[in-house]
Amino acid sequence: MRMYDIIEKKRDGQKLTNEEIRFFINGYTNGEIPDYQASALLMAVFFQDMTEEERAELTGAMVESGDQIDLSAISGIKVDKHSTGGVGDTTTLILAALVASLGVPVAKMSGRGLGHTGGTIDKLESVPGFHVEISNDAFIDLVNKNKVAVVGQTGNLAPADKKLYGLRDVTATVNSIPLIASSIMSKKIASGADAIVLDVKTGAGAFMKELEEAKELAGAMVSIGNRVGRNTMAVISDMSQPLGNAIGNALEVKEAISTLRGKGPDDLTELCLELGSQMVVLGGKANTLKEAKELLYDNLHNGKALDHFKQFLESQGGDAGVVDNPDLLPQAAHTFELSAKQSGTVSEIIADNIGTAAMMLGAGRATKDSEIDLSVGIVLNKKVGDPIDKGESLLRIHANTDQVEDVKEKLYESIAITSETVESPPLIYDKITE
Amino acid sequence: MRMYDIIEKKRDGQKLTNEEIRFFINGYTNGEIPDYQASALLMAVFFQDMTEEERAELTGAMVESGDQIDLSAISGIKVDKHSTGGVGDTTTLILAALVASLGVPVAKMSGRGLGHTGGTIDKLESVPGFHVEISNDAFIDLVNKNKVAVVGQTGNLAPADKKLYGLRDVTATVNSIPLIASSIMSKKIASGADAIVLDVKTGAGAFMKELEEAKELAGAMVSIGNRVGRNTMAVISDMSQPLGNAIGNALEVKEAISTLRGKGPDDLTELCLELGSQMVVLGGKANTLKEAKELLYDNLHNGKALDHFKQFLESQGGDAGVVDNPDLLPQAAHTFELSAKQSGTVSEIIADNIGTAAMMLGAGRATKDSEIDLSVGIVLNKKVGDPIDKGESLLRIHANTDQVEDVKEKLYESIAITSETVESPPLIYDKITE
Repeated sequence: MRMYDIIEKKRDGQKLTNEEIRFFINGYTNGEIPDYQASALLMAVFFQDMTEEERAELTGAMVESGDQIDLSAISGIKVDKHSTGGVGDTTTLILAALVASLGVPVAKMSGRGLGHTGGTIDKLESVPGFHVEISNDAFIDLVNKNKVAVVGQTGNLAPADKKLYGLRDVTATVNSIPLIASSIMSKKIASGADAIVLDVKTGAGAFMKELEEAKELAGAMVSIGNRVGRNTMAVISDMSQPLGNAIGNALEVKEAISTLRGKGPDDLTELCLELGSQMVVLGGKANTLKEAKELLYDNLHNGKALDHFKQFLESQGGDAGVVDNPDLLPQAAHTFELSAKQSGTVSEIIADNIGTAAMMLGAGRATKDSEIDLSVGIVLNKKVGDPIDKGESLLRIHANTDQVEDVKEKLYESIAITSETVESPPLIYDKITE
Repeated sequence: MRMYDIIEKKRDGQKLTNEEIRFFINGYTNGEIPDYQASALLMAVFFQDMTEEERAELTGAMVESGDQIDLSAISGIKVDKHSTGGVGDTTTLILAALVASLGVPVAKMSGRGLGHTGGTIDKLESVPGFHVEISNDAFIDLVNKNKVAVVGQTGNLAPADKKLYGLRDVTATVNSIPLIASSIMSKKIASGADAIVLDVKTGAGAFMKELEEAKELAGAMVSIGNRVGRNTMAVISDMSQPLGNAIGNALEVKEAISTLRGKGPDDLTELCLELGSQMVVLGGKANTLKEAKELLYDNLHNGKALDHFKQFLESQGGDAGVVDNPDLLPQAAHTFELSAKQSGTVSEIIADNIGTAAMMLGAGRATKDSEIDLSVGIVLNKKVGDPIDKGESLLRIHANTDQVEDVKEKLYESIAITSETVESPPLIYDKITE
């Protein structure tokens, strides 16, 4: 078998065999196939696409290129959730406790990552004492006992994907549905979940800015998951404006606590119920999404979800007192209101830019070695579709500096107020359940 | 400027600017742009093509990546001819003397090359004493005096093309019209000709097997030539069967001599008149192709072309006696007839395979270091459309071994005889004169 023939075949729009895909992934991972042949194939895939079978095979080959986490010692169906990334997305924190409260085991591996705010681990570390440095055995014991635990990512997961992603990033071949879908799914599958729920974001703050693209990606990932034997569902949700109101690490934890108490922002609550109900159905704890949603709704309002969150924090060394007294979370030294310059209706809150403003305050990492300030961020008082009076507060800035003029400027540029009628955008665009 | 953006732009079907094309070619030649980005761009070009302006700019940038031969000391309009390569193509030898006999200067740089038979220099070296080791000054003097000289290729011509071709060869991006056209033209232009005539072959023995592709390539090269200020014309000619009758080095020289005497095979003579008339018009020695063709025809029959060939051989040390006594050329030890196994009409002589058979006899180089046997080869007695009786000779094999069973087998496989009527294929499919 020759890489040349594989490139030529895909270039000419033919379907690659399983053997050819594995020859490529194995050869590229071990360095026998050079970057210049891999990038030519990636560009050919960009133009010629891959069939569902090819995508599943590519994913499987990337999974097998590295370690695969074994979660078989955890009883029950382990369901993982993945979001394609947005601004102010606190769903993981909420869902972990909420779904676990119905007995679905949540064995979460998470990272720190780069971006507007920290990752799930960063956010959790704003709870005094909370840590993720636990052994694999302790992790598994915790999930069996509490149905939820979070640990830092370990192992060499899908190294083929890591190497390929690095190449795609410099050869303009990132933006290809089969390549994006297989990349995401290979990491999720190597992490050991039995079933997967995907939250594919669309809108200005999302990687997939167009709804059609987001639907295509969601469909591609669900197909891959089901083909490789992991039941997979997806929700396509809005990320034109930030989700919920808080953007920032401790601020998002506080918002997660409110939501688990049944008093969270409508959009964040609704999305957690949608994603959670897919997780519960896949976890075998309800037969229908409707039934699952009712069970989850109950636990948000009867204190069970919140109790589960306390137990989860405590079991990993965290001060559960933050749940009843959020002032124990890191607090920024200063707050500033951003007041509306005109009356009207909020017509736009560009999610991406709000995230950038939070990062300017120190809420996120620009590079791997940046320090995060867990206390800072932004809390929206208004969302798209809300009426506002001139002088009224659009949002509150939490900062550890009193020099926030550039942040304010960025925020003013990113929020539009109009005299016309504006509908609040839909939150859920589509659901894929099989 | 970033290579990433250039790849993305071409990937999305946009036209690259002159600056972007030069940034790529210069950066790739000097090693600043890595192979993996270059191959991604090449694959994007494969799918998105290039405009005529982009192709001309790419060619110009490749020309400027290395040495450019200065032929300005030669008076007159220097016209070069290029063939995309075929089997039994002796036109260069014939045209050199024929066109020079009308006063058009032919300053030919030639190589040895790999393939079914040797290159122009190998063929000429079958004339005892002939050599191409002459200084640049002597070369220019000879062209000024005799209007024709041949020298080995010197200088670092179009190194960008050389490097890119090596990459295309391993990334399945050879077969792209803009890349093929710019590759060929960059080398021709760097060789210093003022005007260029192209012989684009089509059919089973040609690189461009389909007529439409051949036409497209010819049009692309003529456009490039004219855009970079080199008047260019093209002929699209048949290469489904070998051109002329002889395939082999000394055998082709002998056939060239016959043709210069006005007694060559019809197809070879006709193609030389077509290509030659374009060269004469571009060289400013006739106003129309018709007029040029008449002048060339006259010189084939009045001895002037043959005299010019003698003078050319002598001026580079060759024994011009071969012209009147071709037995002075290297002779193979054995000859064998290939007799027809049935009566009928010859319907197929697969050019490629006949070339391979010649190579099996030792007429061509398989690798750069192979030795060529100048004496061996094949002379066809029949061409497609000719009637033949069972037992009659299809061709004669000239060999230096008496073990030619495998060659015979190859030849039998490559020649078809049918009981049905067969038309002789057209020789000239198209001409592009502006």
